[in-house]
Amino acid sequence: MKRFFNKRETIVTEGLEGLLRSSSGADLCRLDGAEDIHVILRRHWNKDRVAVLSGGGSGHEPAHAGFVGRAMLTGAICGQVFASPGVDAILAAIRAVTGDAGCLLIVKNYTGDRLNFGIAAEQAKALGLKVELVIVGDDIALGRTDRARGIAGTVLVHKIAGAAAESGQSLDAVAALARKVASGLSSIGLALSDCNVFTPDQPPRLGENEAELGLGIHGEPGVERIPMDSLDRLMARTADKLEASLPKEGKFIILLNMLGSVPPIEALALLDGFSRTALAERTAWIIGPAPLMTALDMNGFSLTALPAETAFVDALAVEVGPRAWPGMARYAPVATLPSPELPETFIDAPSDAPLLRKLITTGAEALLSHESALNALDAKCGDGDAGSTFAESGRQILKSLNSLPLAAPQKVLATLGRLLARHSGGSSGVLLSILATTAGRETDWRSGLQKGAAQMQAYGGAKPGDRTMLDALLPAISALEAGKSLGDAAEAARAGADATRQMTARAGRASYIPAEQLADIPDPGAEAIAVLFEAMAKAL
Amino acid sequence: MKRFFNKRETIVTEGLEGLLRSSSGADLCRLDGAEDIHVILRRHWNKDRVAVLSGGGSGHEPAHAGFVGRAMLTGAICGQVFASPGVDAILAAIRAVTGDAGCLLIVKNYTGDRLNFGIAAEQAKALGLKVELVIVGDDIALGRTDRARGIAGTVLVHKIAGAAAESGQSLDAVAALARKVASGLSSIGLALSDCNVFTPDQPPRLGENEAELGLGIHGEPGVERIPMDSLDRLMARTADKLEASLPKEGKFIILLNMLGSVPPIEALALLDGFSRTALAERTAWIIGPAPLMTALDMNGFSLTALPAETAFVDALAVEVGPRAWPGMARYAPVATLPSPELPETFIDAPSDAPLLRKLITTGAEALLSHESALNALDAKCGDGDAGSTFAESGRQILKSLNSLPLAAPQKVLATLGRLLARHSGGSSGVLLSILATTAGRETDWRSGLQKGAAQMQAYGGAKPGDRTMLDALLPAISALEAGKSLGDAAEAARAGADATRQMTARAGRASYIPAEQLADIPDPGAEAIAVLFEAMAKAL
Repeated sequence: MKRFFNKRETIVTEGLEGLLRSSSGADLCRLDGAEDIHVILRRHWNKDRVAVLSGGGSGHEPAHAGFVGRAMLTGAICGQVFASPGVDAILAAIRAVTGDAGCLLIVKNYTGDRLNFGIAAEQAKALGLKVELVIVGDDIALGRTDRARGIAGTVLVHKIAGAAAESGQSLDAVAALARKVASGLSSIGLALSDCNVFTPDQPPRLGENEAELGLGIHGEPGVERIPMDSLDRLMARTADKLEASLPKEGKFIILLNMLGSVPPIEALALLDGFSRTALAERTAWIIGPAPLMTALDMNGFSLTALPAETAFVDALAVEVGPRAWPGMARYAPVATLPSPELPETFIDAPSDAPLLRKLITTGAEALLSHESALNALDAKCGDGDAGSTFAESGRQILKSLNSLPLAAPQKVLATLGRLLARHSGGSSGVLLSILATTAGRETDWRSGLQKGAAQMQAYGGAKPGDRTMLDALLPAISALEAGKSLGDAAEAARAGADATRQMTARAGRASYIPAEQLADIPDPGAEAIAVLFEAMAKAL
Repeated sequence: MKRFFNKRETIVTEGLEGLLRSSSGADLCRLDGAEDIHVILRRHWNKDRVAVLSGGGSGHEPAHAGFVGRAMLTGAICGQVFASPGVDAILAAIRAVTGDAGCLLIVKNYTGDRLNFGIAAEQAKALGLKVELVIVGDDIALGRTDRARGIAGTVLVHKIAGAAAESGQSLDAVAALARKVASGLSSIGLALSDCNVFTPDQPPRLGENEAELGLGIHGEPGVERIPMDSLDRLMARTADKLEASLPKEGKFIILLNMLGSVPPIEALALLDGFSRTALAERTAWIIGPAPLMTALDMNGFSLTALPAETAFVDALAVEVGPRAWPGMARYAPVATLPSPELPETFIDAPSDAPLLRKLITTGAEALLSHESALNALDAKCGDGDAGSTFAESGRQILKSLNSLPLAAPQKVLATLGRLLARHSGGSSGVLLSILATTAGRETDWRSGLQKGAAQMQAYGGAKPGDRTMLDALLPAISALEAGKSLGDAAEAARAGADATRQMTARAGRASYIPAEQLADIPDPGAEAIAVLFEAMAKAL
């Protein structure tokens, strides 16, 4: 797996410098300390309230540094990838942010983190600072044990403790609330791949037909290896496992966390999949989907549930500084707005006009009769369907003939514009629809066609000489506008179509084909226009 | 490549329903129209200002629907994956949002989008609505041509036009500003992989040693296939290519966009890499790194530059509703805060006390002399370094002996706490540091050790009986606190260590090893504690 990477020794520094330089970094600073001290802090922090610190190994971005900011973390202490930060770094952070109100440390339940944060807390206390520590072990993969790992739910402790601290609560109150959140959290992860710690030759742990349920955020194996399955079934399995661990009563706040390399459309689809699980029925609030606690490039997600207690909901709803926080919303049915009525294709009363009927019939029939020949031409310079798309336009027009207001030519153009927009596949029908719609808005059909042709160029992006249908259409329209006959226009269209044999394609699919393959072949669109005008001219 | 996926026919619906249900969806709704109409709109829109619509194929999330909200898009019309939405959907959206102030359509420069949005605009005008359309083609991969594709820069048009519309400007003014932005944009992409349109057997286009510069956002091949390289060199190549296309004077707003599956730490490191390019010198404002316009699961990024004109900067700085907008910040040197002085390890004046010196020396030397034996024991139940980590603690203590305030035992404990925190590798040193630091805070060393042992359990997470050093340490400390002799304490430690032979490991690495492999082997940590106490008792 190729990665954007310089070297292992610098990746954490690079990631944190990147955060500080990013559009999320304006209110952040870093401690300018020893080389192995990676501490990110709020830039304008005056120690007048309880400081909230967290941290741990890197590789979980945006956690932890991405959640430093107003009403969330006061600072984050970052270790190397998947390694606890050292005591000195943690102590330096505590000293940098702690005033009389004291400091809360939020620590994920891993031995290294517990020990290093623990000793830093003890040393800070020995220096006379008020420090409390809360351990988060929200992972229910191995059941509810003292050894449960801290995973994505930890960010909800950051959020709730951060809001309480920002509102001026005491250290005891903030710590008690944080402990209450931590004890209420339940999380479980599912992934399609393990993560790769920048080791090029590391073989993937999972086969192409395997997924893993109940994994950690450091590449630890999952509790269950399960068969690869559809999104809905993988999500249901995860949500069911989580629900089985939850209290039997009450509603929940659900966090849908992404683990590092899930594309956004899949992340969103995962939440839609969640809506079809039993747990969705018990969901009152939703956070995400978003990457909050990732595991490098792991292709997976985790679900976290927290009882929807008022104190939790209120704290989670507080607006915060960090942009990595994805917000929380009521989990509610999707809001809809009735679609506006689209204009009927046939607005005007049908009427007849024998000449126009004959012209339209003849033109449409000509497109039908040339379907195969035009397709064959297009097979040499496009995808071989030009004849069929022109023929489809012809078919739709013939089918609608008795619904057209033939006695009012401008209205016929407008009607054909609507008809071709709705029922023709392919660009040619849409281009003819633009021509007709524009022309139909003008009082004079000749200048209308000229304006329509200009719109075709504006929207389609092709110019005369680019080897498109315009090269036949524009000369024909110019002839008509100059007051010449339909026969003259047909001649102009034919000359234009023939001229495309020597043109270089600069628009449409033909522009991707080597010029020598197109030599002496006319453009199928231009040819269709010539065929159309020739047939109509003959019908007069 | 395994994906979170149900089926191609439903992926767009699932993604959009997921957005509406997400924590970013509270202010959004969808048009409840025909099945193939995917239109996302602001939920509380009263048509009193210019409406701003965009859209195009799906697979680019959060674009376009993720940017619907206050001061950005009024709505987004979404096609199938990488396919333009149809005319009816676009027309329905225009009708749903357009009041007297009119509507601006922001369209990426692809033939299908130009035609479908174009014809919808013409039909809306035919219905009497005021509609303007701006085409965005910011990709400079093929030079500055009419065929330049619309890529990530398009989102800056959404942002600036959205801000102008929100502030009540007229349709003409909003459209003119949007066109000015569009003509000022330059973008270029680089990727390590093409994207996969949910086709399991699609072979990757790029080899393990290849990257691609100047690619599109639909899996189109890049203009240059280049050798895989370090992050810094890939970023420099991309930034240099972009800079070569820019005006020679002036500063720029830079957007760093992620293409779909780049892990967050790599995205941040890419911005750090950007800071070492020549273009960084000309950067005044930064947006991202963030996924704004993705290409399904493409592992790559794009850079976009826009001249830092005041009108653009002001509009980009406006706060918006959509959480997918990553904000903009001044591109400035990283802010730092001097690291607080860490407490010196040796705070108190050295002093002597022959008995304590002898006890400490003997204990430390015992740990050194048992290094190999304890390592051998640990090789059977851990990672084989228990002896070395205890010995390292012993070495540090012996080295510091003449700096210790030996005449003040409480201060000795506090000093050893600081010393072991800073200089011992491994958990054992940190645990002993917690013991010493806590004990050093008490006035009575016996009850201090008891409290310290409690803190070891709190931070380390092990309990008596879990087969750890506690099983030797706690009985020894209890003996001392009960007023017994050091010899009695040593006996208690030895009995405790021996008892670990029959214990099941419930903490530390040994807990991952089958119980039968540990049968009759003492825990190396408990054994080290017994050795320590036995040596000290003998020295008296």
